[in-house]
Amino acid sequence: MANKIFMIITFIGVPLSVIGSFMHWPSILLFAIYCLTIIALSSFMGRATESLAIVAGPRIGGLLNATFGNAVELIISVFALRAGLVGVVLASLTGSVLGNLLLVAGLSFFIGGLKFKRQRFNVYDARHNSGLLVFAVILAFVIPEVFSMTMNKNETLTLSVGISIILIILYLAALLFKLVTHRGVYQHMNETEHHEEETPEWSKGVAIGVLAVATICVAYISEHLVHTFETVAEQFGWSELFIGIIIVAIVGNAAEHASAVLMAVKNKMDIAVEIAIGSTLQVAMFVAPLLVLISLFLPNSMPLVFTLPELIAMITAVLLTIALSNDGETNWFEGATLLAAYVIMGIGFYLL
Amino acid sequence: MANKIFMIITFIGVPLSVIGSFMHWPSILLFAIYCLTIIALSSFMGRATESLAIVAGPRIGGLLNATFGNAVELIISVFALRAGLVGVVLASLTGSVLGNLLLVAGLSFFIGGLKFKRQRFNVYDARHNSGLLVFAVILAFVIPEVFSMTMNKNETLTLSVGISIILIILYLAALLFKLVTHRGVYQHMNETEHHEEETPEWSKGVAIGVLAVATICVAYISEHLVHTFETVAEQFGWSELFIGIIIVAIVGNAAEHASAVLMAVKNKMDIAVEIAIGSTLQVAMFVAPLLVLISLFLPNSMPLVFTLPELIAMITAVLLTIALSNDGETNWFEGATLLAAYVIMGIGFYLL
Amino acid sequence: MANKIFMIITFIGVPLSVIGSFMHWPSILLFAIYCLTIIALSSFMGRATESLAIVAGPRIGGLLNATFGNAVELIISVFALRAGLVGVVLASLTGSVLGNLLLVAGLSFFIGGLKFKRQRFNVYDARHNSGLLVFAVILAFVIPEVFSMTMNKNETLTLSVGISIILIILYLAALLFKLVTHRGVYQHMNETEHHEEETPEWSKGVAIGVLAVATICVAYISEHLVHTFETVAEQFGWSELFIGIIIVAIVGNAAEHASAVLMAVKNKMDIAVEIAIGSTLQVAMFVAPLLVLISLFLPNSMPLVFTLPELIAMITAVLLTIALSNDGETNWFEGATLLAAYVIMGIGFYLL
Repeated sequence: MANKIFMIITFIGVPLSVIGSFMHWPSILLFAIYCLTIIALSSFMGRATESLAIVAGPRIGGLLNATFGNAVELIISVFALRAGLVGVVLASLTGSVLGNLLLVAGLSFFIGGLKFKRQRFNVYDARHNSGLLVFAVILAFVIPEVFSMTMNKNETLTLSVGISIILIILYLAALLFKLVTHRGVYQHMNETEHHEEETPEWSKGVAIGVLAVATICVAYISEHLVHTFETVAEQFGWSELFIGIIIVAIVGNAAEHASAVLMAVKNKMDIAVEIAIGSTLQVAMFVAPLLVLISLFLPNSMPLVFTLPELIAMITAVLLTIALSNDGETNWFEGATLLAAYVIMGIGFYLL
Repeated sequence: MANKIFMIITFIGVPLSVIGSFMHWPSILLFAIYCLTIIALSSFMGRATESLAIVAGPRIGGLLNATFGNAVELIISVFALRAGLVGVVLASLTGSVLGNLLLVAGLSFFIGGLKFKRQRFNVYDARHNSGLLVFAVILAFVIPEVFSMTMNKNETLTLSVGISIILIILYLAALLFKLVTHRGVYQHMNETEHHEEETPEWSKGVAIGVLAVATICVAYISEHLVHTFETVAEQFGWSELFIGIIIVAIVGNAAEHASAVLMAVKNKMDIAVEIAIGSTLQVAMFVAPLLVLISLFLPNSMPLVFTLPELIAMITAVLLTIALSNDGETNWFEGATLLAAYVIMGIGFYLL
Repeated sequence: MANKIFMIITFIGVPLSVIGSFMHWPSILLFAIYCLTIIALSSFMGRATESLAIVAGPRIGGLLNATFGNAVELIISVFALRAGLVGVVLASLTGSVLGNLLLVAGLSFFIGGLKFKRQRFNVYDARHNSGLLVFAVILAFVIPEVFSMTMNKNETLTLSVGISIILIILYLAALLFKLVTHRGVYQHMNETEHHEEETPEWSKGVAIGVLAVATICVAYISEHLVHTFETVAEQFGWSELFIGIIIVAIVGNAAEHASAVLMAVKNKMDIAVEIAIGSTLQVAMFVAPLLVLISLFLPNSMPLVFTLPELIAMITAVLLTIALSNDGETNWFEGATLLAAYVIMGIGFYLL
């Protein structure tokens, strides 16, 4: 059903995007078309990655998911960086973190909690993820912020590059830990083994083809999307910060949002939590540092220095997530708390 | 026994307060009379609320306790706001949070711990409360502080009002969760059911009468109390901040302090913790935002922006509370740690 | 084996130190000789304290370990304070905290984790220590930082002295709790009792003699060591901050580092964690406040006010430690995370 809608949007949206950008349609209209089309395309990319992951087996599959999971966001960000929109990229990274931790997890917990009184998830995974959230968001993002206060531009960039490399190495180490050395170690303790036979939706060839075509389309549209930001910001009275944090983040993560909520409704809370927090870690430990490194080859380099409101929003979101998730249980009220936090931040960034 | 003393203080204090304020006795003397009388009156209000709560049954009763529990503090604060003492009100809110988390919990843990080697309390409630403490104090109080740095006065107030509304909605949602949808869900797990027959001290009519009269008296005295602050501050060399944080907070919460310690000595640690942390949440999620909204109708509006020392004191107090309470156990040393934290902050605010 | 090497270094290093300082050898050479000799001497002091502790029984022994455990660091710091190097002393305290929490614990978890898939330690002790870490590093170090922003020098020092006294009292209370009132209370729950017969390496007399001689040597060398800092900093292009945080901290804690890793390899994770975190608490709750008090009798008094980067580094290190240790388990990846954090901070302080 949803797949059909996304297919229709794709087959209408891609041509419209091409035509519209050539005909110089009004920016607001183009902005809307681009956003919708990217959301639809990213659902294709998600399904293709999923199929490939099943074909490739759990280890390579996990690696595929971990690298291609945030491909759309990465692509939009690279084009935004090329257009010199460093502030928008940092804002969209912030938006992804907040969106995943507060909006995705909040909706999952809340909607899942309306159906089930108490939902449980693997507390070992949650704690493993808590540690990484503290490492990535609180430690690795705060240090450059504070240290750069008394540093010049070059030192700040050097520190950012150093931290980025360490973040990526630790991200790879985390994959090694999860997929190889400690695979399944923490699962047998409180879960019945459920080896559902998973059959890929598409064959290897089709999946690669879909992935390639969708990626090219996303890239093409993203390049045009970032140039509409300025006009949209002006016309709606939004700051570029707000566009980055709310709009880009939602467009870049819409597919994940939908599937996390779906899992919560099916009481598969482990997967819902994994999508929300795993995706946050992907952004913080892989996408963000990769963008810092990529930016070195672009005219405007991007240090890993967020604005203070962005940083504080991310830190408090992480602390709230940890406080709510360390008991391995969720209910509708925990979801409401996360959503309330998201609304507070939305108001804040809107007014900023 | 204690009730008798409070009755004597009330029957001497109320007339003295009236006479003294008419005769313009020295401020210091009046300040002392007002404080003592309010403490005595608030014990009456507490007992009346308790009686009404028993008559009304657990749901309405819980609601009554949750709204009238901090009535005294609310009344004093409204009169202080009317007198333009925004700083004192924010300080007394800070003082309530610190007093409940560090002084009340600290005394309960310490004195209870002298009698019992290890005291246990419901860890589910503690975790539920931890999440709300992070939400209210760390997230909802920090965001306006940081975001308002680059905002003008109007934007700051808009953000404060938005956050206040969300805080109150979530507070009501928390009551719904605790009293309706998940009532008793987390209790059967590690507690024997103990349905003590509770008989109200007063009938419904008497209780409402006592509540009404005591409230009027508190209101009358509070109005005069806030006007003594300036003189008292001058004469003792105290800052208004210190009066708000230490004095007003202790006067406004004295009754709770006493009953929490009493519960700890009886090894009813669940109730002692509930008083200390529940009362903090009431202040942070109900009294504080309500005062922001009320202030809109007064000459001086109050944004939800504390001073940095106040905010940092509250945040560190919350982090300490969470670190100490997440194992569901207390002992004398944990109490000593909380008390030591209170003394450190007392010194800090005294010197400020 | 290690003991033999330390003995050789001592018997060569002490005379060389004396001769070198009289002959005014180049500072870099002297710096190297001093550092190596102090590391060797501190291993003697550690063994002597250990022997005395066994002879004296667990209570007095625990007290001995708790007071003499960081004697070397205390001695170096006192001489640095006398030389007016307040900044270096604060940096070396920071370095001790970071070194113990991130480097020592990180190496222990990582190397231990390469041999054992999952290592467990006493989660009760870990939680007790978490509370104290939050109290000492987050609360007691942050309060003076923030409050002193609007204080004059005298008020800042008064606040520092007050906090220092409270820290030391609570440290003594913690010893009372651990060694007297709650000794063994939390151990019988998840540990088999293992009363290994411990025989002291040295008799009481020999141990006292070794301790006395080694202490005098350390004092003598420390006095000269601190005067080489300036030249070394200049020649290597290091800031004094970097010397304090990385070099002094490693020299002052080398012995502990080695024994913690050794314990981890033997799967005695309780002891490894106790060394890393216990040593941090000793520095934060005993050495640091003691130095503040001692500084009152020296020309340059030392307030308990770290630089912002130092403070943030310590806070994030504590939060990471708590997030990783509150499940009572370690593995190689948790070690890698701590080491990655240490490298990030190393880069930061180097660039500062």
